[in-house]
Amino acid sequence: MAKRTSLARSPCPVGRSIDAVGDWWSLMIIRDALDGVGRFSDFLASLGIAKNMLSARLRTLVERDILEIVPASDGSAYSEYRLTAKGRGLFPVIVALRQWGEEFFFDPAETHVRLIDRAGRRPVRKLELHADDGRLLTPEETIVVHPD
Amino acid sequence: MAKRTSLARSPCPVGRSIDAVGDWWSLMIIRDALDGVGRFSDFLASLGIAKNMLSARLRTLVERDILEIVPASDGSAYSEYRLTAKGRGLFPVIVALRQWGEEFFFDPAETHVRLIDRAGRRPVRKLELHADDGRLLTPEETIVVHPD
Repeated sequence: MAKRTSLARSPCPVGRSIDAVGDWWSLMIIRDALDGVGRFSDFLASLGIAKNMLSARLRTLVERDILEIVPASDGSAYSEYRLTAKGRGLFPVIVALRQWGEEFFFDPAETHVRLIDRAGRRPVRKLELHADDGRLLTPEETIVVHPD
Repeated sequence: MAKRTSLARSPCPVGRSIDAVGDWWSLMIIRDALDGVGRFSDFLASLGIAKNMLSARLRTLVERDILEIVPASDGSAYSEYRLTAKGRGLFPVIVALRQWGEEFFFDPAETHVRLIDRAGRRPVRKLELHADDGRLLTPEETIVVHPD
């Protein structure tokens, strides 16, 4: 996107995050990585993106310490992409996009991929934002403040 | 982005959400709208984006029922953009990006914009994902399942 530099130095953490992720394809790659995808060929099959576009985005995500390259988990000669701790930190972003999509872009009768709790096998609750003292907060109960 | 149609029909809610938001600039507009920005001139000043780019994105966000046009809140002849219920539903996405940015893109000594609780005037907690029975979940305790 344009104006990358200004966003990378933005005093707003939202701007810096957006700058670091890069583009929507990169976010789709991160979604797949969170679901356990690691091989180039599996990202390719999942995303239906051109090889050179996928290569460029994977390279950028490695440069930005969001993905790392590791030996294949099956002991073969291949290598795989794995999320770093910073990359795994994007889990709530993906969950938030998922829950918004579930609420506004599916007919009630339409089936979709679901995020469930491994142990309980039940869909998870909606993401919750709490105050420091534990109260559940609505968007209206919060405000953005600039540094002094 | 490319492949819009395939994402708009994706069985994955993340894909549909990404398709609907459109691009990162649109997400920055939504961030500003959540912070109370409503006037064209104020979005322009906040984002440092070209007028025609801003116009195009605002128009698309209105078409997608994320923003709506309302009379100015000060009673003047101007109109303003306001988030719809669907638009306000993106609040957790913005909060998640904000918290990732705070964690990974600021030096400890660096100040940044903060999201605080209006009543308590304290920074909010990190977003929490809970199981149906209330347990706090880590990413590893969740799994994505496809419809039968």
